[in-house]
Amino acid sequence: MTNKPIISLDAMGGDNAPEIVIQGAERALQRYPQMKLVLVGDEARLSQMLAQTKFARAIDIMHADERVKPEDKPSQALRNGKNTSMWQAIKLVADNQADAVVSAGNTGALMAMSKLQLRMMDGVTRPAIAGFFPTVTGSGCMLDMGANIECNEDNLVQFAIMGSAFVRSVLNREAPTIGLLNVGAEEQKGFEYLRVAASILSSDKLGLNYKGFVEGSDIGHGTVDVVVTDGFTGNVALKTAEGIADLFQHSLKKSFSQSIFSKMSYLTALPQLRRVRSLLDPRAHNGAVLLGLNGISVKSHGGTDGFGFANAIHVAVEMIKYGFMPEVSQTIAKANQVLEQEKGNDE
Amino acid sequence: MTNKPIISLDAMGGDNAPEIVIQGAERALQRYPQMKLVLVGDEARLSQMLAQTKFARAIDIMHADERVKPEDKPSQALRNGKNTSMWQAIKLVADNQADAVVSAGNTGALMAMSKLQLRMMDGVTRPAIAGFFPTVTGSGCMLDMGANIECNEDNLVQFAIMGSAFVRSVLNREAPTIGLLNVGAEEQKGFEYLRVAASILSSDKLGLNYKGFVEGSDIGHGTVDVVVTDGFTGNVALKTAEGIADLFQHSLKKSFSQSIFSKMSYLTALPQLRRVRSLLDPRAHNGAVLLGLNGISVKSHGGTDGFGFANAIHVAVEMIKYGFMPEVSQTIAKANQVLEQEKGNDE
Repeated sequence: MTNKPIISLDAMGGDNAPEIVIQGAERALQRYPQMKLVLVGDEARLSQMLAQTKFARAIDIMHADERVKPEDKPSQALRNGKNTSMWQAIKLVADNQADAVVSAGNTGALMAMSKLQLRMMDGVTRPAIAGFFPTVTGSGCMLDMGANIECNEDNLVQFAIMGSAFVRSVLNREAPTIGLLNVGAEEQKGFEYLRVAASILSSDKLGLNYKGFVEGSDIGHGTVDVVVTDGFTGNVALKTAEGIADLFQHSLKKSFSQSIFSKMSYLTALPQLRRVRSLLDPRAHNGAVLLGLNGISVKSHGGTDGFGFANAIHVAVEMIKYGFMPEVSQTIAKANQVLEQEKGNDE
Repeated sequence: MTNKPIISLDAMGGDNAPEIVIQGAERALQRYPQMKLVLVGDEARLSQMLAQTKFARAIDIMHADERVKPEDKPSQALRNGKNTSMWQAIKLVADNQADAVVSAGNTGALMAMSKLQLRMMDGVTRPAIAGFFPTVTGSGCMLDMGANIECNEDNLVQFAIMGSAFVRSVLNREAPTIGLLNVGAEEQKGFEYLRVAASILSSDKLGLNYKGFVEGSDIGHGTVDVVVTDGFTGNVALKTAEGIADLFQHSLKKSFSQSIFSKMSYLTALPQLRRVRSLLDPRAHNGAVLLGLNGISVKSHGGTDGFGFANAIHVAVEMIKYGFMPEVSQTIAKANQVLEQEKGNDE
C-alpha cells in the first residue's frame, strides 16, 4: 500500500448523494486518518457541505458538471458521460491519481465505465461483481452479483478464480473453499455449463479448493467461502436475502409491540436484539468489488447511508492494501488450457 | 369437495420416512377428522407403527414393495418405479380412488410420475411447482420452485395464470397481484424472454392483475401475491430464504447465550421470540403443489417432520376443497392467442 492511499469518491452517485458520501467520508477518515479522499461532483455544493466538517483538510474536491442518473442505460451513460462525477472519479484511478474509486451510483454504468477506463486483466473475459454477506460461520463472498445476467462455463471458472484470490487477500483465508450455486448438490443437477465448469474447477492443475455444487441455503449457512454463480441468480439471491432480513426485523418488531408485557421484555432484550441486528446489518457488508479489472472499483449499495458508504470505502482500503492479485491471470491461463483440453477430448 | 376426502400418502418418501409420514397423518387427522388417509408403502412396517396410534381406523395401508431413492434420476424412477410407494400413491389419484397425493420424496421423480399418470391440463406446456412463503404482508406464492430449470416466455405466462388461480382459490384473494422476478424493476432489465412474458401478461384480454417486474427483496416484502420465475431461480431464491432464516435463528441463539444476563433476558423475551419463530417457520409453509396437472399432487419438503408433513396434507385438503381451477385452461388459451399475435406483429 502507498503510504497515503488516495480514494476517489463519486460524490453524486446514490439515492441520497452527496449527503451520504460526505457522511461516509467523515466516518472512514475517523477510522483511517492517514487516507486522502477526493470528492468528485458539484464543487459549489460540496465545498459548502465540506466546510461544516472537521475533515476538510483530508478531502479534496474535483468538479464535475453532471451525474449519471439511476435510470441511464450503460450504453447511454458511456456516450454522454465524460462530464459525469462517475466517469471523472474512475478517471483519477485510470490516470494513477487515485488508488481506488467508490461509487453508489448506477451499477451498469459503473461497470461499463470502469471496464473502459481501467481495462480488463489478462485472460479475463468478463469482470464480475463480488460482495460479502454474513453467514452462520462468519462471512462469505458471492459473485457475480449482477454484472453479467448470462454466463457460460468460462465465465464461471474465471469468477471462481477471481473470487478465491479476493477472499484470500481480503479475508486472509489460506485456501478459500469454492462452491458452484445449483439446484442440488448431486452431480447430474442443473445446466450443462455448470457441469463443465465443475469439471474444470476440479482439475488439480488449478490448485483451487473446489467443493462442488452448493444450494441457496448454503449461502446463509456459510458452507463455502466463495459462492460462484451467474449475475442473474446472484442478484436475485442477494436481494432475496435482504428481503428475508427485512421480514425478520419486521416480525421481531411486531412481536415485541403486541402488549405492554412484550414491550417491557423488549427493553430487557434490547442489547441482544441490537447485536443480532448489527451482525446481520446489510450496511455492515456494503461495498462490492468489480473484479477482473486493472484497477480497484467499488460499488456501494445505492440506498445506503453514511455508515454503509464508509464500509464501502473500507473495502477499497483493504483492496489497496492487498494489491491486484497477480496470481489471478496465471490461474486463468491454466484454466483456459484445461478448458481447451476438455473440449479437445470431447471432439 | 367430496364428503369424505381421501388422500394417498407416499409413506416411504422423505429423509425420515415413514416416521414423519405417520406423525403427520396423525396431526392432520386431529384437524380434519372427517378425512380418510391411505398410507402406501411397506405394509408390515406400517401396520406395526400404525397399531400404536389412535387413528388406525381412519388410515388404510396399501402395500408397495419398493421406494424411489433420493438420488434416482426422474427417467430412472419412471423406468423401474411401478412398484414404488410413490408411483402407487399417485396411481390411486389417477384411478379416482383418492382425491390427492402427498409425497416427501424425490421431487423430479414425483413430477415425472405425476405428469405421466395424471396428465397435463389442456394448454399447459409444462407443470410447475408452486409454494407459499411468509412475507411482511402475510404470505405469498412463488412458482416455479424447481420443476423446470430452463423456461421460456410461454412457460412463464402459463405459470402466472396458474399461480393467480391457485392463490385466488387457496388464499381466497379476489384479484391476486402478479410479479415477474427480475434483476430490477426497470422495463429494459433482464432477459428478452422476460420482456416478452411481461408484455403478454400486461394484455387486457387476460384479465390478470400483472404488476410488472419484481426483485428478490420483493419476495420477503410481499410486494405481490404471486412471484413468477423459472425453476432454477425459484429454487435458489427459496433455499436462500431458508438459509437466511437459519442464520437469523442461529444469531438470536448466539446473542442470547453470551452471558448470564442475556440468558435471563432470553427467558423474558421467550414468548415473543417463539412467536417470530413460528411466524417464519418453514414447516408452517410446507407443501408445494404441482400445478398444471389433472389431479392434485403435493410435494412436502424431504427433510420435514410430522408437523411439516401435516401442513402438506393441509394444502392437499385446501386444493380438494377448491377444485381444479377450470378457468386456467381458458386463460391459457387466450394467452396463446396473444402470444401468436405478438409473434405475428414481430414478423
